Amino acid sequence: MTTDLQDYSHKRLNILTGEWVLVSPHRAKRPWQGQNEAVSNEKRPTYDPKCYLCAGNTRINGEQNPKYEDIYIFTNDFAALQSDSPSFSVEDGLLVAQSEQGICKVICFSPDHSKSLADMEPKDIEKVVQAWQHEYKTLGEKDLINYVQIFENKGAVMGCSNPHPHGQIWSQSTLPNEVDKKNTQQLNYFNKHKSSLLGDYLTQELEKQERIIYENDAFVVLVPFWAVWPFEAMIVPKQHRRHLLDLENNEPFLFAEAISVLTKAYDKIFNTSFPYSSGIHQAPTNGEDNTHWHMHMSFYPPLLRSATVKKFMVGYEMFGSPQRDITAESAVKMIKALIA
Amino acid sequence: MTTDLQDYSHKRLNILTGEWVLVSPHRAKRPWQGQNEAVSNEKRPTYDPKCYLCAGNTRINGEQNPKYEDIYIFTNDFAALQSDSPSFSVEDGLLVAQSEQGICKVICFSPDHSKSLADMEPKDIEKVVQAWQHEYKTLGEKDLINYVQIFENKGAVMGCSNPHPHGQIWSQSTLPNEVDKKNTQQLNYFNKHKSSLLGDYLTQELEKQERIIYENDAFVVLVPFWAVWPFEAMIVPKQHRRHLLDLENNEPFLFAEAISVLTKAYDKIFNTSFPYSSGIHQAPTNGEDNTHWHMHMSFYPPLLRSATVKKFMVGYEMFGSPQRDITAESAVKMIKALIA
Ligand SMILES: O=P(O)(O)O[C@H]1O[C@H](CO)[C@@H](O)[C@H](O)[C@H]1O
Ligand SMILES: O=P(O)(O)O[C@H]1O[C@H](CO)[C@@H](O)[C@H](O)[C@H]1O
Repeated sequence: MTTDLQDYSHKRLNILTGEWVLVSPHRAKRPWQGQNEAVSNEKRPTYDPKCYLCAGNTRINGEQNPKYEDIYIFTNDFAALQSDSPSFSVEDGLLVAQSEQGICKVICFSPDHSKSLADMEPKDIEKVVQAWQHEYKTLGEKDLINYVQIFENKGAVMGCSNPHPHGQIWSQSTLPNEVDKKNTQQLNYFNKHKSSLLGDYLTQELEKQERIIYENDAFVVLVPFWAVWPFEAMIVPKQHRRHLLDLENNEPFLFAEAISVLTKAYDKIFNTSFPYSSGIHQAPTNGEDNTHWHMHMSFYPPLLRSATVKKFMVGYEMFGSPQRDITAESAVKMIKALIA
Repeated sequence: MTTDLQDYSHKRLNILTGEWVLVSPHRAKRPWQGQNEAVSNEKRPTYDPKCYLCAGNTRINGEQNPKYEDIYIFTNDFAALQSDSPSFSVEDGLLVAQSEQGICKVICFSPDHSKSLADMEPKDIEKVVQAWQHEYKTLGEKDLINYVQIFENKGAVMGCSNPHPHGQIWSQSTLPNEVDKKNTQQLNYFNKHKSSLLGDYLTQELEKQERIIYENDAFVVLVPFWAVWPFEAMIVPKQHRRHLLDLENNEPFLFAEAISVLTKAYDKIFNTSFPYSSGIHQAPTNGEDNTHWHMHMSFYPPLLRSATVKKFMVGYEMFGSPQRDITAESAVKMIKALIA
């Protein structure tokens, strides 16, 4: 790898979206006089009577949560997408709109209010993976649903409105922008090379060993060459797996283990419960074969210099391209050093 | 306009980028238990001895600001892009990178530390517009520079590290992602229709009068049909202007007036100095004719429900598509009612 990439401004191509990230390695030392985030390292109780996700509590709409023991899933009380809304489309000159139906669910990872994925055992995270598999399957089987987006917003700084360990599943009739880009890029590559884009990329990364954080028998945790967020990372299956239902044998457990290793390392970076948004990109549930898809889970953590200073994706990033200061290669070194 | 758009989930097409925004009008009433932003309505002094942008003060690198009286422009002390960095390119299998050169400048809008654009008179904002014109011209004339991005991050919540009224100008050798998308969409439309995409859109909006906030003889302020941010707005020249240097006669003043009207209305929405990132998208300075370009200035403000509750673009938005709750049409009504 040319050392220029560690010293001078450049852009790197995200092969999955076709878009670029601007990297400015020389800029990492700029001073900070801007906003600091509030950081809460207080230990939460295992049960909070006011939490609308704790077992047995009543939610805002009057429904009562069961006394669940591991995972609990329900339809979002304020769902952004609904399954019974009317179909319509607008094409009025340059005003173009289309109705979008869907189902939005909330998934509690544990009844223990005090935990995050980083505090859970791999065997408990495996139950989360199995629940994701079940949701991907049952939602995906519906005619209405052609794509299932699994994600988690962790931490107040990521807009998470409740610290109880939980994620969300928004499933819908059409492909959202980011998925559509990745669908196209993977399809073009597959048509040309008859192999998986991400699989071939993984082979290259495993040879180089420059951006690998961790691997087990079935999964690799790495910082992609084109990472945008300061400590962004990606979990990729070694074998060609289009989606969660392609996982074989003990792969759900090995996936859980990879999630556990990464999130535990994250918490050590700034000695804080590390905020992030994570999400799984996988094959659409549109009834097609989708062999060009290679599933992967990405983590986008906003913290940059400390538990209180985050990277703002604003001005230039909104109008131009995403921009980062520390390189992917420096980030790997920092994360890797924290793996137990 | 079908009323379905005010009641049910749908997606709207951004004709300038080719991407979609998910709109969930029924969701605006969901409760908020998440992070609140700190809000500072304290009046700042007109001069702050510790501010590195105030006239006469010394900056971090030891340089002293002149005793400037209106506008002051200097090269960013921690520039993300540099003009003297080496040229290189990496194409190593699926690892693709290219060096990027550029020049990053800071522009102080006023020596008065206490002001924002919203507090300035249109005739003073006109000086900012003229300075932008000068920078677009002189930077754009350099061989190295093929695109000039003018933007402002206002407010701590937008990552602005200093409250002194200022913006930035990042100019560079290649087109950033967002500009590249708009370049393609406008070019395709122009080749097909022999007219400006944004000009034709404006004609349609002026007929409908559903999303117009304000107009003067040369500029229209509107909420685009595909707006993403809660109170997003766009300033568009009525005549076909590719870039700032196409402005004729008193158009720089009329542009300043439009900026003034919009930013003053913004400050009234939640009775606070309204944070936003703004930016001007205009023709590249790549020596081509760029007739397909129609310049416009966009404002992306993050506040949603109050001075302290913002819209988080996280999880679903990062992995799927941007999502908004209040519709563009509701936002227009709120902003329009606040114009003096
Ligand atoms: O250049 P500044 O004001 O120090 O920094 C701010 O604006 C930049 C350009 O939008 C962003 O990259 C930074 O994340 C933000 O904090
Ligand atoms: O659904 P929640 O947790 O109430 O809301 C959070 O996640 C959503 C999906 O990423 C975002 O649209 C919201 O802005 C964010 O606050």
